[in-house]
Amino acid sequence: LSSEPDKPAGVATDLKTVSWAGDALTGVVRLIDQTKLPGELSYLDCRDVAALFEAIRSLRVRGAPAIGIAAAYGVVLGARSAGWSDARAVRLAAVEASQYLRTSRPTAVNLFWALDRMERVVERAGELNGRELLAALWVEAGSILEEDRRICRAMGQHGKGLVPAGGGVLTHCNAGGLATADYGTALGVLFAAAADGVEFEVYADETRPLLQGARLTAWELQQRGIPVTLICDNMAGWMMKRGKIQMVIVGADRIAANGDTANKIGTYGVAVLARAHGIPFYVAAPASTFDLAIPDGSHIPIEERHAHEVTHPQGRAAAPEGIRVANPAFDVTPAELITGIVTEHGMIAPVNPARVSAVLARP
Amino acid sequence: LSSEPDKPAGVATDLKTVSWAGDALTGVVRLIDQTKLPGELSYLDCRDVAALFEAIRSLRVRGAPAIGIAAAYGVVLGARSAGWSDARAVRLAAVEASQYLRTSRPTAVNLFWALDRMERVVERAGELNGRELLAALWVEAGSILEEDRRICRAMGQHGKGLVPAGGGVLTHCNAGGLATADYGTALGVLFAAAADGVEFEVYADETRPLLQGARLTAWELQQRGIPVTLICDNMAGWMMKRGKIQMVIVGADRIAANGDTANKIGTYGVAVLARAHGIPFYVAAPASTFDLAIPDGSHIPIEERHAHEVTHPQGRAAAPEGIRVANPAFDVTPAELITGIVTEHGMIAPVNPARVSAVLARP
Repeated sequence: LSSEPDKPAGVATDLKTVSWAGDALTGVVRLIDQTKLPGELSYLDCRDVAALFEAIRSLRVRGAPAIGIAAAYGVVLGARSAGWSDARAVRLAAVEASQYLRTSRPTAVNLFWALDRMERVVERAGELNGRELLAALWVEAGSILEEDRRICRAMGQHGKGLVPAGGGVLTHCNAGGLATADYGTALGVLFAAAADGVEFEVYADETRPLLQGARLTAWELQQRGIPVTLICDNMAGWMMKRGKIQMVIVGADRIAANGDTANKIGTYGVAVLARAHGIPFYVAAPASTFDLAIPDGSHIPIEERHAHEVTHPQGRAAAPEGIRVANPAFDVTPAELITGIVTEHGMIAPVNPARVSAVLARP
Repeated sequence: LSSEPDKPAGVATDLKTVSWAGDALTGVVRLIDQTKLPGELSYLDCRDVAALFEAIRSLRVRGAPAIGIAAAYGVVLGARSAGWSDARAVRLAAVEASQYLRTSRPTAVNLFWALDRMERVVERAGELNGRELLAALWVEAGSILEEDRRICRAMGQHGKGLVPAGGGVLTHCNAGGLATADYGTALGVLFAAAADGVEFEVYADETRPLLQGARLTAWELQQRGIPVTLICDNMAGWMMKRGKIQMVIVGADRIAANGDTANKIGTYGVAVLARAHGIPFYVAAPASTFDLAIPDGSHIPIEERHAHEVTHPQGRAAAPEGIRVANPAFDVTPAELITGIVTEHGMIAPVNPARVSAVLARP
C-alpha cells in the first residue's frame, strides 16, 4: 500500500497537519497532503496564497479547524507578497488574500472565523509598519493554531467520560488530528478516553465520495493502536441493529444557534439511524464552529462538489458517462437528533438555543 | 468511459443477462460479464461448471433470479461433462454439479430453489437415457429462464401503480434486467410504470462496496431513458429529508415466511430512513425468493465477503494496510419496515406471515 511503509508509524502521536515552517518573512505553510494518505505521508509547502487556496479547495487540507488554521497562515503568505516596506500595501494584500480565501469552501464556518480574526489584526494595525504588521499577522495565525491544540485537548477531557468501556463507537468522516492542528475533535475525545485506559472499538464509516474515513480515520486510529473496523457507509445501520455500536461521535463544519449541525454528507443519516436504535449521538466541535448569527441549520450553505468525485471512486470511472449526479458535501443534522455537543467549554446537552449560548458563554 | 461507446445503446430493451447459446449438446451459458459494466458490454461464455461457479462467485453474474437461472444451466454443463451415453454417469454429474454450485453463494435462495428444480428432474429421470436426461435438464433450465421473463413482467404490472407520478423513487443495488433474465424485479416495476407514461425520477444508491447501483442500475435506467440521479449511499437520508424521495423500491435475495427480507447491505438502513421520513418502502421479488422453511430473517445466512472489496474501491487501495474490515454482503430488513412486497401473484401488504402465505398460494 505504502511506498514507504515505515514512515507513517513514526507520526502516531506527533501529527503536524498544518504548521508554519521557518520565520514570518521567509517561511512556508507546511501541510500534510491528505489526498495522498494513507499510502504516502508527504508534506506540501505552500509559498503563496494561490497554492494554499488550491490545497483547501482540493482537500489536501480539510476538516473545519484545520482549514481555519491554514487560511489564517494563508493571510500571512498574502501579506508577505507585498514585500514588507509599505504598510499600506501589506494591509491591502492581507485583506485581498483573506477575501480570496473566503471563496475556497462555503460550509465550514471556522474558515470565516479565522479570517475574521486575521482581518481584525489588519484593522487594528494602526501605526504598525509593514514588517510589524506582518509579524502581528503571523503571531495571530500561530495563536489560532496553538489555541486549537489546547481546545482539542480540552474537548477530549470534557468528552472522554462518554465513551462506553467495552463498547463500539461509530464515527463518520475524519474529525481527528488530520482535521485540526494535531489532535482532533471527535477522535480527540476517543484519544483522551484511550489515554485513560478505556477499551473500546471504533467503527469507521469509509465516507464516500472521498473516503476520509477509510483513508484518514482508519489510519489515525491504527497509528494510535486503537482497535478500528472499517465499514462502508451503508453498513452503519446493520452494525447498529446487530448491537455493535453503543455511541456515535462526529465532528462539525458549522453549528447554528439552535444546535443544528452541518457535517460531512451522511452524518444526518447516521443520526437518524442512531435515534432509531436508541444510541446516543454526539458532536464534538470547538466554539469557533458555532455560527450564532444563524438561528437554525436551514441557513447553512451546503457545498455541492464536482460529479467526478462520485462517478470516479479512487479516480476510476464506475458510472456510465453523462450520468446525473448529486454531490452535496455536507448535510444538516437537526438539534433534536443530537444527544450532546462537546465543546472546550463543556458539554451542551440537551441541545437547544439556551444551552448553546449558556455553555459558549463560559470562560 | 466505454471503449465501444455506441454498443450499449443498442441493448436498451434487449438485455440477455443469462442465456444459453447453441443446442443442449454443444452450447454454452452466455453471460453479460457485469464486472465490466458500464465501461464495456461484453459476454462471457461458460463451457463448464467451474467457469460458471467462478462467474457466480465473482459476481460476473449476480442478482438472485439471474443466479438461479445461471446455476440451472450450470447443471446442464455439468451433466454434459459426463458425455451422454451413460444415463447413470449423466445423473451423477448433474447432481455433483448442483451440489457444487450450491456452495457458490449462501444468501440468495433462488440459487437453491433453481438447483432443487434441476435435481428433481434428475430424480424423476426414471428410464430416460443419458441424452434424454440431458435434454430434460436443458428444457427445465430454459423453463426457469422463461418463467423469470414472464414473472418479472407480471410484477411490473402488479407494482406499476405504486410509482408516484412526478415523484422521486430511490433504489439500492441493482434489481433490474441485469439481476434477472432481462427485465428486473424492482426496476421492472419502474419500467412498467414508465411504459404507461408515468414520469418520475430515480435516485440510484451507488451501493458500496461493489457499486452495482453506479455501474448497473444507473446504466440500465440511462439506457431506457428514465431520468436517474446517482448518489452515494450516505446521501439517501439527506435526499429524503429534502423531499426528493416519495417511494423506495428494492429487490430481495431471500424472504422469510414472515416477510423479513435479506437484500444487499444497506437496504436495512434505507428502510429505517424511509420509515423515519414517512416514505413507503417496497420490495419486489418473485415467489422463488421466499424461503418459507424459515420463520424469520434471523435464520438467513449472511455472506461475508473479502475485505479487499472494501479496502480497494475500483481496485485501488484506499485504506491503510492491515486494517480490520467488516463486509457483510447483505442485511435483513424486518417485515414491519416493509410497506408491501410485490410478487408475480400480487402484492403482499401488510407484510405478515398470513398475507405472505395467502398471496403466494394464489395461482
